[in-house]
Amino acid sequence: MIDLFSDTQTRPTPGMREAMARAEVGDEQSGSDPSTNALCERVAAMLGLEAGVFMPSGTMCNLASILVHTRRGDEIIVDDQSHIYNTEAAGAAALGGVSVRALPTRVGLFTAEAVAAAIRAPQRTAPRSSLVSIEQTTSFSGGTVWDLAEMRRIRDVAQARGLVAHIDGARLLNAVAATGIPAADYARGFDSAWIDLSKGLGCPVGAVLCGSSAFVEAAWQWKYRLGGAMRQSGVLAAAGLYALDHHLDRLAQDNANAARLHRAVADLPGLGFDPTAGQSNILYFSVEGLGITAAAFAAACLEEGVRVRALGTHHIRATTHLDVSETEIEQASAVLRATALAFAARD
Amino acid sequence: MIDLFSDTQTRPTPGMREAMARAEVGDEQSGSDPSTNALCERVAAMLGLEAGVFMPSGTMCNLASILVHTRRGDEIIVDDQSHIYNTEAAGAAALGGVSVRALPTRVGLFTAEAVAAAIRAPQRTAPRSSLVSIEQTTSFSGGTVWDLAEMRRIRDVAQARGLVAHIDGARLLNAVAATGIPAADYARGFDSAWIDLSKGLGCPVGAVLCGSSAFVEAAWQWKYRLGGAMRQSGVLAAAGLYALDHHLDRLAQDNANAARLHRAVADLPGLGFDPTAGQSNILYFSVEGLGITAAAFAAACLEEGVRVRALGTHHIRATTHLDVSETEIEQASAVLRATALAFAARD
Amino acid sequence: MIDLFSDTQTRPTPGMREAMARAEVGDEQSGSDPSTNALCERVAAMLGLEAGVFMPSGTMCNLASILVHTRRGDEIIVDDQSHIYNTEAAGAAALGGVSVRALPTRVGLFTAEAVAAAIRAPQRTAPRSSLVSIEQTTSFSGGTVWDLAEMRRIRDVAQARGLVAHIDGARLLNAVAATGIPAADYARGFDSAWIDLSKGLGCPVGAVLCGSSAFVEAAWQWKYRLGGAMRQSGVLAAAGLYALDHHLDRLAQDNANAARLHRAVADLPGLGFDPTAGQSNILYFSVEGLGITAAAFAAACLEEGVRVRALGTHHIRATTHLDVSETEIEQASAVLRATALAFAARD
Amino acid sequence: MIDLFSDTQTRPTPGMREAMARAEVGDEQSGSDPSTNALCERVAAMLGLEAGVFMPSGTMCNLASILVHTRRGDEIIVDDQSHIYNTEAAGAAALGGVSVRALPTRVGLFTAEAVAAAIRAPQRTAPRSSLVSIEQTTSFSGGTVWDLAEMRRIRDVAQARGLVAHIDGARLLNAVAATGIPAADYARGFDSAWIDLSKGLGCPVGAVLCGSSAFVEAAWQWKYRLGGAMRQSGVLAAAGLYALDHHLDRLAQDNANAARLHRAVADLPGLGFDPTAGQSNILYFSVEGLGITAAAFAAACLEEGVRVRALGTHHIRATTHLDVSETEIEQASAVLRATALAFAARD
Repeated sequence: MIDLFSDTQTRPTPGMREAMARAEVGDEQSGSDPSTNALCERVAAMLGLEAGVFMPSGTMCNLASILVHTRRGDEIIVDDQSHIYNTEAAGAAALGGVSVRALPTRVGLFTAEAVAAAIRAPQRTAPRSSLVSIEQTTSFSGGTVWDLAEMRRIRDVAQARGLVAHIDGARLLNAVAATGIPAADYARGFDSAWIDLSKGLGCPVGAVLCGSSAFVEAAWQWKYRLGGAMRQSGVLAAAGLYALDHHLDRLAQDNANAARLHRAVADLPGLGFDPTAGQSNILYFSVEGLGITAAAFAAACLEEGVRVRALGTHHIRATTHLDVSETEIEQASAVLRATALAFAARD
Repeated sequence: MIDLFSDTQTRPTPGMREAMARAEVGDEQSGSDPSTNALCERVAAMLGLEAGVFMPSGTMCNLASILVHTRRGDEIIVDDQSHIYNTEAAGAAALGGVSVRALPTRVGLFTAEAVAAAIRAPQRTAPRSSLVSIEQTTSFSGGTVWDLAEMRRIRDVAQARGLVAHIDGARLLNAVAATGIPAADYARGFDSAWIDLSKGLGCPVGAVLCGSSAFVEAAWQWKYRLGGAMRQSGVLAAAGLYALDHHLDRLAQDNANAARLHRAVADLPGLGFDPTAGQSNILYFSVEGLGITAAAFAAACLEEGVRVRALGTHHIRATTHLDVSETEIEQASAVLRATALAFAARD
Repeated sequence: MIDLFSDTQTRPTPGMREAMARAEVGDEQSGSDPSTNALCERVAAMLGLEAGVFMPSGTMCNLASILVHTRRGDEIIVDDQSHIYNTEAAGAAALGGVSVRALPTRVGLFTAEAVAAAIRAPQRTAPRSSLVSIEQTTSFSGGTVWDLAEMRRIRDVAQARGLVAHIDGARLLNAVAATGIPAADYARGFDSAWIDLSKGLGCPVGAVLCGSSAFVEAAWQWKYRLGGAMRQSGVLAAAGLYALDHHLDRLAQDNANAARLHRAVADLPGLGFDPTAGQSNILYFSVEGLGITAAAFAAACLEEGVRVRALGTHHIRATTHLDVSETEIEQASAVLRATALAFAARD
Repeated sequence: MIDLFSDTQTRPTPGMREAMARAEVGDEQSGSDPSTNALCERVAAMLGLEAGVFMPSGTMCNLASILVHTRRGDEIIVDDQSHIYNTEAAGAAALGGVSVRALPTRVGLFTAEAVAAAIRAPQRTAPRSSLVSIEQTTSFSGGTVWDLAEMRRIRDVAQARGLVAHIDGARLLNAVAATGIPAADYARGFDSAWIDLSKGLGCPVGAVLCGSSAFVEAAWQWKYRLGGAMRQSGVLAAAGLYALDHHLDRLAQDNANAARLHRAVADLPGLGFDPTAGQSNILYFSVEGLGITAAAFAAACLEEGVRVRALGTHHIRATTHLDVSETEIEQASAVLRATALAFAARD
């Protein structure tokens, strides 16, 4: 099976396993795990931020950031297709007492003007707007890459009004690969940002959350309180260090593979693409024009050996990653194309 | 000054003060305040629901309902102009750990289809959708009256999917006055509903929240926990009983006064009205077409002795109530009209 | 019936009702209710604190104080018999995410040394200790009056370690009546303190929470968020103003009445008194030595027309207040004495 | 250095690293990680419970259990020396809105009678008592082993009153090694129980939480919401499987080593031992009789190459584990003894 369900499905390579098996470890809670420390320093340097903390997941990176940056009764601003709003089980509200203002968007992008309009005027009856989050790239709307200038305008509007600016960088490195803009340029001036190790980088577990030293110290207490503090996490961090050495450059290949998939189906009748489609490692399109559900389309692909993900009633998401070779992309392209044509013929 | 800022600005009449001074009282926490008990029973009967509990405010009615009906990490569905989303200081999230899904609407009305689409499919990564709230009439978008049939379709869709259906009835009685439909018809089958005493009814303090006996018992504990449990609340409940005897029928007058205001300005250039405008006791319009801010318009009216409320950058809200006589409405109509014309001339 | 169940059971006097009926009112949320403003200023002055806010209950005073003074994940220090720990339905945790460290005590009194030992050293794995609360007088352990010097030592230890010092003054004025020490001397240097209107002062509803202006502004938002913001609360505040004019001096009478009750039964076999018993308006004793439950003792008294409160399995609490005259205290003394003697004879 | 600071300090052995490097993995969130699945099934079987879920830490096991078993505003019953009360950063309150009732104990043990007395009678003003937790063995009071019969009495009292019974089994397997009673006998009838992999078992990361299938499904959502959901966690689970194969039987050795340490110092003047001391792999004693602080004692040991932990002002905790050999225990015994004698001589 060619698995395009998500880039979270990668399995560690032999080289990565070897690195894990030889990892130098200590107790991360005492600050004495050398591999974890090295990884955190390296990612912080890559993002141009002061310090970092290793987390078991990207979800905990977002949650801990919200918990550090806000007070109970605050409101945070995100896009309506964001992971925070849709796929974190309402953790911000459930665990932080924080309300979410989800800006209506088409593909997860909003403007500085929309942020300015959404910030609540200070008054007793309103929550305090305290954080704006940008998801680079957008996860549920096609891996669209945020424009750097717009990100900075949003950051500036937010900070000028007393809000904190945060980057959900689950696929930030795919944006870096797509645009050539260094991660530190994207993260510059933001109050917190993180990258995921278990997506395009191909590690089994983990993410690294960065910000100022004071922020990281506060995030550490929340990591502990949430149950995310581990012991010899160096075995996981070693995979991260290995990935930064060996898997970083090849993210461009994932983007190229997604573009290849895109080209294979872009002209087909019945498929709906957003103009921003195909910018990174996610292909995202509607099958509503074929008169079928996304579930039906995904099932038909699976029968031909290609696993894609149905999102909502009508959307298909296919994600490329290091466990899918160029040859498999060719095969998958053919399957997607044939499937769409077959449904179109039936229509 | 003619005060159209809000119907919360009413002062108790001599008759109401007399009723309060003579109120029979006991300790509401022991269930032995006869006036409070009588009021709760009377409102419950009016709404066709089993039982009621007296609350210090409508905000506590909404909050306690959410706290009873949900679990931490749930999501509730409201309109994007609702009091719960905008003007309760994010209490649902802050105090209940509950996330709010604010449906995009024009004037606070949504459809059963929109609710159905917003209910989350059960999965680990999603919050549980557990409550839908309807605000009858809409507060921040002009006092629009919800259609009974649509309310029932929403109620049915929600309950069929395992959600609870709630009515924020801050101005439910204005809807009753506008349509002639009894309150019990509106509330029938809903899991909870409340009316406010300190708006059109003219009482100084309080609201009554109704539902099943089990719901009310649970709401009582939250009232206590939130600090809303009082002692000889009969002095306040007596005002409520008085209002139900003497102020209920005259709500139609408030609606008529708002309609009068509406007619006075409906044809003016530069003012923007929604087609649903003028249905109950709130007049709501945009002054964007005059090229000025709402604050400027409100200030100009105030100089002429009429207090209206600026909402956001461009909207004016004027609310009628029992402290504003027909004559004053005539004067206020003239002031609003003259102010708009003056600004239009300057433009 | 002579009702010694609680001093919350008082009913407003004719004079107080008259004051309420004539109250000058406005909208408290706009800061324009003159009676409410006057009451807040007067109580703040009495406590020597900067500002005050009217609340529907003492429970909301404690809760709002905790919400202002703490962050989620903090720990507060109280005595194990306190109202906050036992009788506020765990509001601090439920609504504030705050853990309670209940110091083991005999009658609700603890020392500065105990506080110092209970403050957590700062570390990731521990909650931050952020508030210590003193209940003056103790409610559930006999109305014991805290020693001013000890209160100040506790306040100083707390503040030196970065904690906030709070007074739950539900019956602070009974302590003032008992010791002659002005309320402002008790509250001096504390970060927040409140008095209840609906206990010894005999008002139907309310309490006033005081502190710095910044504290009160923050408490106001929590009052709103909790649903405690009212409209023409002047009708209730007028009762408070009346009580401060007419009921303050007579609190000494309540204390004297409790002492009278105490003397009537102090020598009886089978009754257990703490050495601190009888200091203010609460009589508290154990009936364990009679071999019966408190419920049985209370039931026997009720048959003779005296209502007292059973607390736990073995304790009786009788509280004096303005609805119980000196003559009734004589009758109640006789009933308590006769009841105890009858049980002792049976034993 | 001989590190007796904690059994969390163990590093994975070569065999364990090898097992991790060869682990069969998938995506745990899709339920398709075979190693994680195998580990969960195996631990569930060991505890005689229906199902299990892999967690990044024991703290998350406790937290998720509380979140599943309680509602906001509930109260849970634990001992005053428990990890939940003292070393989880108040997560139960901060993240679950749950209050903690910490029973006063000497060494972390309480009785069924104490639980019965601590359960709140149902009333509006009280939190609902909903869970009792037993920590087997006690962590901060010397590794004392709970008596099976008392555990069952507590479980029965709790469940009969509608509470849930939970085992914090961070060192349950040390109790099993000490008494020969199977883990399933300890866990029988409890609603949830967990074991830690990163303590005596010597794994780098993780714990397994077990209970009914419905409980585990609910715990899975909290794991996700808290940010504890991982991807190819099989690399960690493989370590757990390896430990169950190779490190289980040797826990008895840790207990024997702790007993040896105990014998070496039990007779020394100035050291205070509880009668329950030395039951499992923790040695715990007071140095108050030496007239010094625990910090001073620990520092002196460290100079001689032995790391122990100072707890509070006067207590020393030394924990044995698989990275400390019998020879090292002999050396450590000598150091502890010499240090105590030296301080005693100075005294």
